[in-house]
Amino acid sequence: MTDTAAPTTDPIRLARDLLACPSVTPEEGGALAYLDDVLSAAGFEVHRMVFSEEGTPDVENLYARIGSGTPHLTFAGHTDVVPVGDAAHWSHDPFAGTIVDGVLFGRGAVDMKGGIAAFLAAALRFLERTGDSFAGSISFLITGDEEGPAVNGTRKLLDWCTARGEAFDAAIVGEPTNPQTLGDAIKIGRRGSLSATLTVTGTQGHAAYQHLADNPIPGIVRLVDALIGEPLDGGTEHFQPSNLEVTSIDVGNSAFNVIPARATARFNIRFNDTWTAEHLKAWLSEKLDAAAGNSIRYDLVFEPAVSDVFRTEATDLIRTLSDAIAEVTGRRPELSTNGGTSDARFIKDVCPVVEFGLVGQTMHQVDERVPTADLDRLSAIYERFLDGFFATANGNGR
Amino acid sequence: MTDTAAPTTDPIRLARDLLACPSVTPEEGGALAYLDDVLSAAGFEVHRMVFSEEGTPDVENLYARIGSGTPHLTFAGHTDVVPVGDAAHWSHDPFAGTIVDGVLFGRGAVDMKGGIAAFLAAALRFLERTGDSFAGSISFLITGDEEGPAVNGTRKLLDWCTARGEAFDAAIVGEPTNPQTLGDAIKIGRRGSLSATLTVTGTQGHAAYQHLADNPIPGIVRLVDALIGEPLDGGTEHFQPSNLEVTSIDVGNSAFNVIPARATARFNIRFNDTWTAEHLKAWLSEKLDAAAGNSIRYDLVFEPAVSDVFRTEATDLIRTLSDAIAEVTGRRPELSTNGGTSDARFIKDVCPVVEFGLVGQTMHQVDERVPTADLDRLSAIYERFLDGFFATANGNGR
Repeated sequence: MTDTAAPTTDPIRLARDLLACPSVTPEEGGALAYLDDVLSAAGFEVHRMVFSEEGTPDVENLYARIGSGTPHLTFAGHTDVVPVGDAAHWSHDPFAGTIVDGVLFGRGAVDMKGGIAAFLAAALRFLERTGDSFAGSISFLITGDEEGPAVNGTRKLLDWCTARGEAFDAAIVGEPTNPQTLGDAIKIGRRGSLSATLTVTGTQGHAAYQHLADNPIPGIVRLVDALIGEPLDGGTEHFQPSNLEVTSIDVGNSAFNVIPARATARFNIRFNDTWTAEHLKAWLSEKLDAAAGNSIRYDLVFEPAVSDVFRTEATDLIRTLSDAIAEVTGRRPELSTNGGTSDARFIKDVCPVVEFGLVGQTMHQVDERVPTADLDRLSAIYERFLDGFFATANGNGR
Repeated sequence: MTDTAAPTTDPIRLARDLLACPSVTPEEGGALAYLDDVLSAAGFEVHRMVFSEEGTPDVENLYARIGSGTPHLTFAGHTDVVPVGDAAHWSHDPFAGTIVDGVLFGRGAVDMKGGIAAFLAAALRFLERTGDSFAGSISFLITGDEEGPAVNGTRKLLDWCTARGEAFDAAIVGEPTNPQTLGDAIKIGRRGSLSATLTVTGTQGHAAYQHLADNPIPGIVRLVDALIGEPLDGGTEHFQPSNLEVTSIDVGNSAFNVIPARATARFNIRFNDTWTAEHLKAWLSEKLDAAAGNSIRYDLVFEPAVSDVFRTEATDLIRTLSDAIAEVTGRRPELSTNGGTSDARFIKDVCPVVEFGLVGQTMHQVDERVPTADLDRLSAIYERFLDGFFATANGNGR
């Protein structure tokens, strides 16, 4: 297909142009300006807005829509990328878009400028093909704050849309969802995420007079041991087991002859639909109280940012995407709820959302890269998905 | 006794003068200069020397001797003091030497400018009294690096003395040795001290993909738990039980969605004469290997500064000091080996050493203070000890 496409509908060309923008979070780096140009030229109405909040960097965002009818499909993504890490370890300049032996290198190649390029090319081809007969709407919800604190990004973009009366019928997020091979998996939900800081307080003293002090370290060790002692559950029909990871323990005492006054542990729980955040909090208190007994003084503070567990139940949407993947790759994707959070956790509140993108193996790593053939195939999948989505919606089936 | 003493043999006057010197470690603060003046005036030959070592502050030290005969008794102490902490919480200026209701306030009041003042006053009175009949030697080994790294202090001072051919028959260290009341305890040895850093290495990863990472925190918790699980021993005739204190656990990971690559624990062991440092190291390796199994990768690095356990066996010296204490206070002191290290750990290599000083309760605290009556009584004890020591040594018994 792409052989005959005009340059602007070539996902490889679009991906290379996007990779050339040094949009390390929270920098815009020219990436949104580039999308603005391409989408405006294609007839989209483009809005760019900066969101701010005290204590976080200002971030640029973009919303672009074509059409005013229904159904309205939105594509969600981010142009910001994680830092390059040790640039000296890259085989190729992470912002040069170098292609070697059919593989495109660059920070964001799979997470997720490649995904944006693939959808953009697919949408432009679809619109070119359907022309005036297209009665629905397609939009792009693109943020520059997915890899950052995610405060001035998709959440505020959705608020902005709601305030304007924008209504969505379905969303597709272009994050890399495939563990090994294009077509492995669609994400139809995510486990929830709850984080907390546990502090045990003792009494400072001299290490040689331990009976006059109260070392908080045996206490924090006992409490942490209780938290990681047994699994939270065995998983459910659609979800992996819930999991608690202790991400840090800190005391910060460099003196070997001093017993410290305080020890903290930080942990994160990814929880499935066995739990709600409230149930988990109660479970944690019970567990910690039992382990602490009367001898350990502890304090547990939850992070305000809690993600609820969710699962998309829009079977038509899932089937349409799954069919498109099967047609292009010959593989029927797994319907997965594994892995980390994405902006789908915000979008699920406004419309059904599915996620499908490239193979995630090299994301966030040195030499992040994507076979150019995958960009072409992903773009083909998105194009068939658009066909199916708008055909199904118009009642003409397939 | 002190009622009739000349001003310079009044321990309270001497203590106040010393407290007025802001000799927070490693600053000399005028304290050694003051001792130099007093000792020189009394006929001592005074040497002051600065010791240096890369990576540590230069520190001033003092050695002063009177007499050239034997026996040679040396008094060891330090004029440096720990920082005042929150100065606003002091009832009185920590460097003003304020006396209220018979209690002298100041940083160093008990640790250990008060002890130096008491011995200095005692020695001056003793020398005044014995006059030309004194055939032995008395010296002062005073460092400004006891509260600091203890690198440019007593150890180098002893090397300097050895190089000059100075030989000691006995030493008394004036550190605060009494838990509650003057006369409670003489220190006749100390447990050894061994410190180490334990590192567990895992593989960094994303908290939502824990199966792709290897969290080192459960490993460090298991190893620490093994170390603190059971006591090292039950104590011995002269020593408290050995004790292991974990003084820090650190990861330094502030991201709740990241599984860290490394966790460290720091610990200190105070060990009695059941052990040598080498036995302990072997015990630790065995214990950690058993707990680590094949699944935990750990590394154990010992601090180079190891103190051996020691106990003074010079019964005459101990009895002479014990008798002096009993005569002045009516209390027969416990012969203790409890507590933290002091410079006695260096001195024990050159001669028998005992430690006796003030009541330690307020040392290193805000409002460090000493009853002036204790200064007088400690000075009286030291004076009787000098009488006994030189009388016993001369074979005239008592």
